[in-house]
Amino acid sequence: MNELKGRKIVMIADDGFEDTELMYPLYRLRHETCADVTVAGIHEGRTIMGKYGLPITTEAAIRDLNPDDYEALVIPGGGSPDHLRVNPEVIDFVQGFDRTGKTIAAICHGVQVLITARLLQDREATGWKSLRVDIENAGARYVNLPLVISQQYIFSRQPSDLGFFCDAIINSLSPGISISAAELARA
Amino acid sequence: MNELKGRKIVMIADDGFEDTELMYPLYRLRHETCADVTVAGIHEGRTIMGKYGLPITTEAAIRDLNPDDYEALVIPGGGSPDHLRVNPEVIDFVQGFDRTGKTIAAICHGVQVLITARLLQDREATGWKSLRVDIENAGARYVNLPLVISQQYIFSRQPSDLGFFCDAIINSLSPGISISAAELARA
Repeated sequence: MNELKGRKIVMIADDGFEDTELMYPLYRLRHETCADVTVAGIHEGRTIMGKYGLPITTEAAIRDLNPDDYEALVIPGGGSPDHLRVNPEVIDFVQGFDRTGKTIAAICHGVQVLITARLLQDREATGWKSLRVDIENAGARYVNLPLVISQQYIFSRQPSDLGFFCDAIINSLSPGISISAAELARA
Repeated sequence: MNELKGRKIVMIADDGFEDTELMYPLYRLRHETCADVTVAGIHEGRTIMGKYGLPITTEAAIRDLNPDDYEALVIPGGGSPDHLRVNPEVIDFVQGFDRTGKTIAAICHGVQVLITARLLQDREATGWKSLRVDIENAGARYVNLPLVISQQYIFSRQPSDLGFFCDAIINSLSPGISISAAELARA
């Protein structure tokens, strides 16, 4: 229940986030593993709305973050990544996070931010099915599985993959609590 | 006022279309040029909703269309292209339309359908700013202008480009009513 107690994780989002893809990892990591999770947006203290209307107030501005201060970056999907990827400060932060070698987890449309940051080259990756050609054109091999792990990167396709996605994030920070290949194959 | 009287144009859309990017070309082409415009969706007779809530009922199913029956294809943006691009019948139709050599016009996120159909290679193109890297990765050169014309293709970036976009569609079907390079440079 507290296997990530005090470990710092940042989630980045803007209006239009897929409500469950933000709230499930947030609650799973903050309330079940006791991680220290920050929800960051373009501005601090701004209420952003999920695509189905769920509001959440950002706790930090992405421009004020230092990648060295966090152990994992989580990027929910929905319409939010389409907003985040046009912001150079967001792209700088994500590229800086990549250089730390620490966990970067993107679900659904979250991978769009990684495409703009040019971080998919020569990886296996996944994401929402509509993005298959974008992912391939970015130099990755698209894998249609609920969970794809490529070095420091964790990818999932859609809300129904959230169990695998969160398990992989937790495991990347606390090795030993791992999902089996057999479980993945049954998904 | 009736320079395209009886000329057949098809627009394709699904839920989440950018309301103005559908309605402006529809009214401009149907009511001002008297073109015979069909709004087609995944299903016929289905009410789809714009991202701001504007409803419109589809008049045909894309799977039932024959590219030979239309002189121009218009693809509005918003969230709609993300839905359309995962439908193989839509991609087949768009690829078939490409082979006719006739006008294909995409605004904003509309270009996503053309990326999945692999029709951007070696073109100049434009689209919503968030898609710049996707467009480049698809083999096109991104041009940040309100209107980009590449052979049979017409591209614009956003709702505020709709004047240029519609003018170019009309001109492609009725040469002589052209926008000047000077007007474009002032935009």
